[in-house]
Amino acid sequence: MPKVTGFKTVDVRFPTSRGLDGSDAMNQDPDYSAAYLVLETDEPGLSGHGLVFTIGRGNDLQCAAIDLLAGYAVGRDVDDLAKTMGAFARSLVRDSQMRWLGPEKGVTHMAAGAVINAAWDLVSKHAKKPLWKYLSDLSPAEIVELVDFRYITDLITPAQALELLEKAAVGKESREKELVRDGLPAYTTTPGWLGYTDEKMVRLAKQAVADGFTLIKMKCGVSLEDDKRRLKLAREAIGPDVRLAIDANQVWDVPVAIEWINSLGDVNLHWVEEPTNPDDVVGHAAIAKAIAPVRVATGEHVANRVIFKQMLQSNSLSFLQIDASRVAGVNENIAMLLMAAKLGIPVCPHAGGVGLCEMVQHLAMFDFVAVGGEHPDRVVEFVDHLHEHFVVPTKIERARYMAPSLPGAGAEMFEKSVADYTYPTGKEWVG
Amino acid sequence: MPKVTGFKTVDVRFPTSRGLDGSDAMNQDPDYSAAYLVLETDEPGLSGHGLVFTIGRGNDLQCAAIDLLAGYAVGRDVDDLAKTMGAFARSLVRDSQMRWLGPEKGVTHMAAGAVINAAWDLVSKHAKKPLWKYLSDLSPAEIVELVDFRYITDLITPAQALELLEKAAVGKESREKELVRDGLPAYTTTPGWLGYTDEKMVRLAKQAVADGFTLIKMKCGVSLEDDKRRLKLAREAIGPDVRLAIDANQVWDVPVAIEWINSLGDVNLHWVEEPTNPDDVVGHAAIAKAIAPVRVATGEHVANRVIFKQMLQSNSLSFLQIDASRVAGVNENIAMLLMAAKLGIPVCPHAGGVGLCEMVQHLAMFDFVAVGGEHPDRVVEFVDHLHEHFVVPTKIERARYMAPSLPGAGAEMFEKSVADYTYPTGKEWVG
Repeated sequence: MPKVTGFKTVDVRFPTSRGLDGSDAMNQDPDYSAAYLVLETDEPGLSGHGLVFTIGRGNDLQCAAIDLLAGYAVGRDVDDLAKTMGAFARSLVRDSQMRWLGPEKGVTHMAAGAVINAAWDLVSKHAKKPLWKYLSDLSPAEIVELVDFRYITDLITPAQALELLEKAAVGKESREKELVRDGLPAYTTTPGWLGYTDEKMVRLAKQAVADGFTLIKMKCGVSLEDDKRRLKLAREAIGPDVRLAIDANQVWDVPVAIEWINSLGDVNLHWVEEPTNPDDVVGHAAIAKAIAPVRVATGEHVANRVIFKQMLQSNSLSFLQIDASRVAGVNENIAMLLMAAKLGIPVCPHAGGVGLCEMVQHLAMFDFVAVGGEHPDRVVEFVDHLHEHFVVPTKIERARYMAPSLPGAGAEMFEKSVADYTYPTGKEWVG
Repeated sequence: MPKVTGFKTVDVRFPTSRGLDGSDAMNQDPDYSAAYLVLETDEPGLSGHGLVFTIGRGNDLQCAAIDLLAGYAVGRDVDDLAKTMGAFARSLVRDSQMRWLGPEKGVTHMAAGAVINAAWDLVSKHAKKPLWKYLSDLSPAEIVELVDFRYITDLITPAQALELLEKAAVGKESREKELVRDGLPAYTTTPGWLGYTDEKMVRLAKQAVADGFTLIKMKCGVSLEDDKRRLKLAREAIGPDVRLAIDANQVWDVPVAIEWINSLGDVNLHWVEEPTNPDDVVGHAAIAKAIAPVRVATGEHVANRVIFKQMLQSNSLSFLQIDASRVAGVNENIAMLLMAAKLGIPVCPHAGGVGLCEMVQHLAMFDFVAVGGEHPDRVVEFVDHLHEHFVVPTKIERARYMAPSLPGAGAEMFEKSVADYTYPTGKEWVG
């Protein structure tokens, strides 16, 4: 019966702003960072790992927020925790004094997510299963118990969720086999960073197609003329059949978004991502209506299930992009999966950053096996950065995420990476 | 030419959870707290004060967030700052790495607000004016320059704001005279805390009417039967002509809110406050429609101008309740005042807590004099707690907020109060 005996947080930063990888219209100089949490136990070799992805300044604050909430896990018996992960997650989110600092948004909410995800890592490692498999093996009733339905019952009730999951249980085994054999389709943002020259972008776009990707994404939103030229070049490079999406990273006001997108010319866009502020449910709905048949994708900065609920109620999006570390962890993300499944909206996770690919793939795989099932538009973002620091790195074959077989939830980094990139004392910062 | 030479933050907490003052359906045991900021200058006696109101745990984290942003003020010349308060506020909100931790919400956004408000305190003290007067004396063009219109131009553009302010400038002088003579109407929540017995509530409600209040507010949302009984008693105590509002502090899901409110019986409610989650624009709109003619008030937990914009676009509220320390300070609150004025919605500030009355009254007074003008439903919350710790405490006469004549923005506390209630080392915590 292992027990959580303590925790530590580490401010890990990668100096990515020294290059231009990861640059976009809103985030000019990100240092990809992780506010990294380790839950320690009294069983040798067993620990739980979670992280919040940030882009530099404030990563120390994010660690401090995790420090304030990680105590909820200390002293807990891991077997008992495994049986009560719903109540555990709710206790973190509902801390009545901390709640004032959100509620359920920003630094404190992401901190809750890191602690919850670290607990999931611990629980799934203790069960010797990868998280996607651990979750897929739960019964519909056990899955319902994980979710905080507060504030979303006007879209989905626990009873409706149970019914949906029971229907999805049919065919679960064959989908699991399919997943293990074929993985899930990935898409790539690698060619599309704003810092790249046209030549580099075209070369990387062609390479992506050669690698088997059927969707590539381009950053946009700084210059309309540049966007028109780059999209035309990209479309020529990838041919008519590969899907092409764009990502504005929140740079536009609503009227500007509509005019800009409708001026891009006929390059057959699959989606426009983050056209405006992530809180703007009404704005996203207005944009979606005005740019149809081009569709809207959003979510990496959506603060919680309440905003996603409204986006689904208001036809604000056609692709729901969950993020592994923005919300209150696996549990709140299951709420998103259930709401999207009820309305038949595909969940297409945001990834990249530090460890987001490693973490969010588990949720996409669980969604495929046990919640949303087959969907022709299901796809998971892939960015080929920083995977070498993770103990169980993503495995992409023929442009598909292959299912991890090793236990855990994906966030564990090599101790040497954590030490070398600790800010500001690690050797990569001192050297 | 004074200059900002440094800053300090202090974790100030009042042990209010030892009593039941301030208890409501969501916040059972608040310790009213302030993450308190002092901007220091090289001019003897001149300093700027700002604070974020929290309810206990996490106040240290809120101080740490302020520490990360207060550096933006250090080294600035106060005269120069006074001329560029719009750009100063935008630079804090748009820090491209810190923005990832919101954007514009939670601990980091409130920290920006504290720094911006402390700068306003400094600037208005340097000009020897109370903030309401300082702002009211600005020209329409100067006021427009203060506001970040990003993400709200679909509701109001800078040009529309300028036109609105120029129209409001007519009659400004006579409204200022009226303000100085009569103040602004206050309402009281003092009788309505959930922890009080029926007898105490009735006694305090009668006292409030005797004191001249024409609107009192009751907490509700824990027990429908209790609410029905308490509201009936309150209505009997105050008579038919005094307005009666209720406040649920976000305790309901949307369907529950509608059923609950429509079951309260005919007590002629003026408004229902915070019926559900503050992010739920769509939910508030559904509730507002279903409970008419009872109207919805909300705002103390609204994270930013983008959520308020949508609430105004969606008829989610009939009373807009700005909060002095929830958003990015005076500047973002001016955005709210402008949006509300454009739609003719009254701004009825949230107050109470620590220093909220002292700070937010300036915004209500500026709104009355220079933005929204006369409105029959304008009213400012008043709670009679903790004013003794403030250097310029609120002055209520005949249930009206009298305009402060001393310079500053209201947040400055006595040094002895700050020292005694510093957590956890002050004498009120050690003793």
